[in-house]
Amino acid sequence: MPAVAATQGRSAGKDPAARRRAGRPSAAVLDKAGITVAALALISRKGYDGLTMAALARSLDVAPSALYNHVSSKDDVLLLVEDHLVEMVDVSGFGAGPWDAAVRRWAWSYREVFAQHTPLIPIIAVLPVANAPKTLAMYEAVTAGFGAAGFPAEKTISAIVALEAFVFGAAYDVTAPADIFDAGTLAAQTPNFTAAVDRLAAEQHPRPADVAFSLGLEALITGFDTLRNR
Amino acid sequence: MPAVAATQGRSAGKDPAARRRAGRPSAAVLDKAGITVAALALISRKGYDGLTMAALARSLDVAPSALYNHVSSKDDVLLLVEDHLVEMVDVSGFGAGPWDAAVRRWAWSYREVFAQHTPLIPIIAVLPVANAPKTLAMYEAVTAGFGAAGFPAEKTISAIVALEAFVFGAAYDVTAPADIFDAGTLAAQTPNFTAAVDRLAAEQHPRPADVAFSLGLEALITGFDTLRNR
Repeated sequence: MPAVAATQGRSAGKDPAARRRAGRPSAAVLDKAGITVAALALISRKGYDGLTMAALARSLDVAPSALYNHVSSKDDVLLLVEDHLVEMVDVSGFGAGPWDAAVRRWAWSYREVFAQHTPLIPIIAVLPVANAPKTLAMYEAVTAGFGAAGFPAEKTISAIVALEAFVFGAAYDVTAPADIFDAGTLAAQTPNFTAAVDRLAAEQHPRPADVAFSLGLEALITGFDTLRNR
Repeated sequence: MPAVAATQGRSAGKDPAARRRAGRPSAAVLDKAGITVAALALISRKGYDGLTMAALARSLDVAPSALYNHVSSKDDVLLLVEDHLVEMVDVSGFGAGPWDAAVRRWAWSYREVFAQHTPLIPIIAVLPVANAPKTLAMYEAVTAGFGAAGFPAEKTISAIVALEAFVFGAAYDVTAPADIFDAGTLAAQTPNFTAAVDRLAAEQHPRPADVAFSLGLEALITGFDTLRNR
């Protein structure tokens, strides 16, 4: 994002507040981990559009120029954020037990991480993985696990993309309001739907999103399991 | 959103430009369809945060007060947008042929609509359906179709939620850049992943996202099919 960088360069030179900040010692302890945490906090508070290099520098109380010593653009920051989140996803099952158990562990932990960070889903779902080493490490572990389990190589990426699509979509469900399917004044016109919603409510699942996730994930695992060569 | 409404009321009274707009005949042709189209255009250009009642009134060239004659809040506008998009989703297969074909037609058309409007996914995925008559009509058609096909009532909503999660996540994939899985300089450290990516690329699918969607959707349909009572 050269346009932003140019703006920052100017503001660091001309804005007296920025000059003051530039002299502070806090810049000395600035590192990628701190930038990542600050970026996540900013996105949580203000959404993706709220993450600008200027706002990030302000939230870290450093001059933009100090920030640019560590990351060269907003895209760089997003890669840090992606890597930070993906590192929390559990791939330990791959190569250490049955394939289905590994997929299950991976998908549940993946959904859990992104349910806490849904504003990032639209960005990370389409962010190229080059230069995101931990994200690539996750894909390598999953791909190797699929290969070792006899999954056909030409279908592995498509299967991973499908599982991730389900995980990302399901992460939103975790944050949905409890009354999302309440038909309100239109209930009389939607008898089948309303009865099904009532039927599910009667089961009093503490986390209905988990029921749907489990149902879909098990179907995907069972379906993909039939593709393996054994 | 009463705070916004109050602000708009004030600006309509005090801002000379708003007063001029209020007198224009364009307010006479303002209707919900026009508001919906303008809201969609605004979200596409500026994202969800760019959709404010003030910006919407400006884009329609009417006074905010004219807008409030038709919709009482931003949430009202979002329900119009949701209903407009969902009306394009094809539920015609339910009750008119095999269950699996109906699910397939529904899911493909659902993904197609939202692939064109990904900025709306984070909102619509968690938007309560009350007061969205066309959205409720879709759910009624799908639920009735599941019931007629012998799907157990207590699992129908969870199955629909799982299918929608997959559809919403997959809609992002349609918009992903072609090089999203290019490991770049880290390719040597991710041999299994890079080989699988190359293997898929060698098949030269015109739309790789469709391959992943088909793989996942067929697994979900097959898995859910086994739950039906026949």
